[in-house]
Amino acid sequence: MKNNEVPEIVISRLPLYVQTLNQLLRDGKSVVSSSELGDKLKMTSSQIRRDLSYFGGFGKKGTGYDIISLMESLRKILNLNQIWQVVMVGVGHVGQALLNYDGFSRKGFEIIAAFDVSPKVIGKKYGTLEVKSVDDMEKEICTLQVEIGAITVPAESAQLVCDRLVKCGIKAILNYAPVALVVPDGIQVSNIDPVLQLQKMTYYLK
Amino acid sequence: MKNNEVPEIVISRLPLYVQTLNQLLRDGKSVVSSSELGDKLKMTSSQIRRDLSYFGGFGKKGTGYDIISLMESLRKILNLNQIWQVVMVGVGHVGQALLNYDGFSRKGFEIIAAFDVSPKVIGKKYGTLEVKSVDDMEKEICTLQVEIGAITVPAESAQLVCDRLVKCGIKAILNYAPVALVVPDGIQVSNIDPVLQLQKMTYYLK
Repeated sequence: MKNNEVPEIVISRLPLYVQTLNQLLRDGKSVVSSSELGDKLKMTSSQIRRDLSYFGGFGKKGTGYDIISLMESLRKILNLNQIWQVVMVGVGHVGQALLNYDGFSRKGFEIIAAFDVSPKVIGKKYGTLEVKSVDDMEKEICTLQVEIGAITVPAESAQLVCDRLVKCGIKAILNYAPVALVVPDGIQVSNIDPVLQLQKMTYYLK
Repeated sequence: MKNNEVPEIVISRLPLYVQTLNQLLRDGKSVVSSSELGDKLKMTSSQIRRDLSYFGGFGKKGTGYDIISLMESLRKILNLNQIWQVVMVGVGHVGQALLNYDGFSRKGFEIIAAFDVSPKVIGKKYGTLEVKSVDDMEKEICTLQVEIGAITVPAESAQLVCDRLVKCGIKAILNYAPVALVVPDGIQVSNIDPVLQLQKMTYYLK
């Protein structure tokens, strides 16, 4: 089913499908057509059918998709049927917001370690999680065997932190720092920079 | 130069180009080839040339791009040569992080009003900005003539806030709530949901 030729842009849309299907389910629906899905996601129904066709045949012509079965298939494709552990580096405003965000754990992502450089923050507790010194990062992470890291440090430290995380075996990085990180092949980086998002929208303004 | 047929995905890459060119400039470079740019951005040089070709001819064959001139052209295309005002709704952890984030103003985005529903937050000051009641949102925004809104409220309130912002003339929405917002045609929405970003990366793990 899954192969390496699925375009990244298609993969990036699958979580939105899961989210929307989940919402339809909560609204009491059990079947959805590609055009209804398209309405919700601001996409054409043919785009949706083409996206899903990468993963085999879902639904039958004229009857729409069975919501539960489509959602479960997509979750399996995205490897969402497990808890993913995450380590975080940088416990400033953004890091704190993430530590307090319950949406992570509700969606199967668990922040299991957080590091900072500042003595003001090291030792602070968020729930059961105690912030540790970034000096101990390698030691801690390498024993944890975690694959996802969140970088919430200032721009000027981000590349160094990234290099250290990659050396510890981190394979996917959620980057909040406003810089383009350089990583070896095979390492995923997702940039969360509100300014980049704003800058692409201003194209359409005025 | 600019036309409506430039694919959205190309537009979404332009801010990354600007960011990378800016970095090269700070590193003391004045000219860059498409393959050097590609190295930095993990893209092929032909993809970069194709992206830029939507906007006319930059650079000459064999000599590379003049960094300042390319950066200025892209900034003009993205309408970045002005200050953009932003209103924010929701001053919880994420909203506070954004209010304290100096990257916004450095990049030309100024949060000029912030609204919340909680009496604990209304009246609080962030720099010179005082958080106002969401009840006064329409009155305040409609006189401000601002076009960009940031939604940092919980998921269950996001669609309602979005509808109200759109009625006030907001044309571009930076959405931090983990829901797919429904908006009329012509309104831009950029979703910042760390979970969606994580979920697309787990596809590549294991």
